[in-house]
Amino acid sequence: MSTQPQHFLYEVRDGVATLTLNRPERKNPLTFASYAELRDLFRALADANDVKAVVLTGAGDNFCSGGDVHDIIGPLTKLDMPGLLAFTRMTGDLVKAMRACPQPIVAAIDGVCAGAGAMLALASDIRLGTARSKTAFLFTRVGLAGADMGACALLPRVIGQGRASELLYTGRSMNGVEAERWGFFNSVHEPEALLEAARAFAQGLASGPTFAHGITKKMLQQEWNMGVDEAIEAEAQAQAICMMTQDFHRAYHAFVAKQKPQFEGN
Amino acid sequence: MSTQPQHFLYEVRDGVATLTLNRPERKNPLTFASYAELRDLFRALADANDVKAVVLTGAGDNFCSGGDVHDIIGPLTKLDMPGLLAFTRMTGDLVKAMRACPQPIVAAIDGVCAGAGAMLALASDIRLGTARSKTAFLFTRVGLAGADMGACALLPRVIGQGRASELLYTGRSMNGVEAERWGFFNSVHEPEALLEAARAFAQGLASGPTFAHGITKKMLQQEWNMGVDEAIEAEAQAQAICMMTQDFHRAYHAFVAKQKPQFEGN
Amino acid sequence: MSTQPQHFLYEVRDGVATLTLNRPERKNPLTFASYAELRDLFRALADANDVKAVVLTGAGDNFCSGGDVHDIIGPLTKLDMPGLLAFTRMTGDLVKAMRACPQPIVAAIDGVCAGAGAMLALASDIRLGTARSKTAFLFTRVGLAGADMGACALLPRVIGQGRASELLYTGRSMNGVEAERWGFFNSVHEPEALLEAARAFAQGLASGPTFAHGITKKMLQQEWNMGVDEAIEAEAQAQAICMMTQDFHRAYHAFVAKQKPQFEGN
Repeated sequence: MSTQPQHFLYEVRDGVATLTLNRPERKNPLTFASYAELRDLFRALADANDVKAVVLTGAGDNFCSGGDVHDIIGPLTKLDMPGLLAFTRMTGDLVKAMRACPQPIVAAIDGVCAGAGAMLALASDIRLGTARSKTAFLFTRVGLAGADMGACALLPRVIGQGRASELLYTGRSMNGVEAERWGFFNSVHEPEALLEAARAFAQGLASGPTFAHGITKKMLQQEWNMGVDEAIEAEAQAQAICMMTQDFHRAYHAFVAKQKPQFEGN
Repeated sequence: MSTQPQHFLYEVRDGVATLTLNRPERKNPLTFASYAELRDLFRALADANDVKAVVLTGAGDNFCSGGDVHDIIGPLTKLDMPGLLAFTRMTGDLVKAMRACPQPIVAAIDGVCAGAGAMLALASDIRLGTARSKTAFLFTRVGLAGADMGACALLPRVIGQGRASELLYTGRSMNGVEAERWGFFNSVHEPEALLEAARAFAQGLASGPTFAHGITKKMLQQEWNMGVDEAIEAEAQAQAICMMTQDFHRAYHAFVAKQKPQFEGN
Repeated sequence: MSTQPQHFLYEVRDGVATLTLNRPERKNPLTFASYAELRDLFRALADANDVKAVVLTGAGDNFCSGGDVHDIIGPLTKLDMPGLLAFTRMTGDLVKAMRACPQPIVAAIDGVCAGAGAMLALASDIRLGTARSKTAFLFTRVGLAGADMGACALLPRVIGQGRASELLYTGRSMNGVEAERWGFFNSVHEPEALLEAARAFAQGLASGPTFAHGITKKMLQQEWNMGVDEAIEAEAQAQAICMMTQDFHRAYHAFVAKQKPQFEGN
């Protein structure tokens, strides 16, 4: 990232990038321009060797209210089919880019997490939240299908087909307690401790074997619809690659020396 | 549906069809004829524009006791292979028809929910139940495999591979509290409030953007074994279709006017 | 099994094989030789008509500590790529053999269940554990990916994609209470009652329709990445096969005679 983004805050410290959606007075909605810039950022992360993990959050006690009604829904009602498809593909490309970058993404979710915002949370690898947060896949509320940015594929694998069906058909909010109970949140935190917990989680990943983490992320994606035997062969190859890294050797030598390994991501 | 079905009760009110298995003295078992008529009904729903959502339930405090031992199991023991395959395909076609019709199906489950009855529940989109209900995939109890009507595909996606394995290998009952905890039931209700809760849920769906609901249902099916990137592209196309509907425009204009949108399913 | 294995205890009683990893002073680690012998045993079970179900456990209050650091990790750091791939394929072949043998595998998990040990648990059909047990997919701790022996395919289907991601990226321990809550354990037992509970569970399966159980296991594997309609057709065929068995007839006649069926696995 040669320049500071226009539509969100972005800071890299000790290998952890923190990306903060930052229109708190509107609960951090997305616009055409911010979608595109987010997509471009996550695409650029594929080559960002200084970034080992990402924290994704929102300013001012809310995560993200999704596509702005005035800035996005209004203009969409005036587009022709090629224009509509260009838009839905752009939003989908954001999710593809989040799943394709090698860095694990830790979402820190407080307050409103709605529509495309809920999809940003779902497209992350790890989700920490607050009890008071409200996550809603509310596409149905604007007359649309629950099928948006990959929701019908991703949500059932995280919380189960039955619970996902309810959220996608009704658009109702899932509160933070449900989210943890159903496996959407990995853990629940007090609002004032949330961002620090997400940063600590990401920092832990950033100090680990980050090349191997990238392989873990790739294989979680790659094996999504493989048969079991094909997945096992794919992992035999993937893990053999990791056994060629110095981090694997570092871990062994540290263990023998009764020390903690210092990983370098190579 | 031009005529009243022979083997179950069927009523349409305000866009919601209520289908009631109705041999309460035997806990609503299925027979060759009722399987076929259920399959035909769900196939016909593909063209039933007056039906926007379905409630599936059983009379007299039980959901469904599955294939009748005397009416079905006995005759099956006398069939040759083509005859057996014709039967297992007919029961499978019922599940296919339930998944293919565009209307979301809300099952209301009290009492016994066993064998093919458990599969009718599993093939529904939403499941409301009671704490006292007992859901059992008990094919193993009659010497058969847990692989019946799609159980080995569907159940693991709803409650997870480990819990599904236990239920399918042992045929043991899952009670209503477990069912809710594991994500099989969306919610648990008092017996006397169950049917009304299911009707209210279905009514809520019927008053929503029902064309979009049909797309949600189709994509939940369609993306079952797609890769993530392919699912995202599929949803980009599916959602672009929904953005061409009047319901999407209605929602936008209602929002701008600070009103509640009135959806019409087109 | 014509001879007693060298690297673990193996006993068959009343159709249930109990396989006990048995280096309790080291928490039952795996070595190159024990991996290979385990793989060969599970391959041989495909033809072992006297074995109807398997209990997999570890001696001395621990399940399995995984690949031995001195016996496995050290030598691996000296191998070239063909040698590494031969190793990762051998470990993967153990999981393939566990999933391919027709007998359901019931793991009894106490104490440490780590690395490849956690994969042995995951590759089982049913998992009983203790509250104090600690299951860790800790490949990341030795600089490797979470993609090992099929973990990225299997774990998300058991506990959900979000929880699996956390365990695979961090290598942290899942305790027994979490394991039950997340669907990894089917049930939790007191340590002194664990093995007996696993044996009773396996005995129950062994006295059931074991040919049909083998079909259940095969279809749970076979339908892993089929579409829903294809899975339903596959089950129509699989169940028609089971309806040709004597066990199906035995169950019907026992039912009519108001007796408990005696299954024989044919």
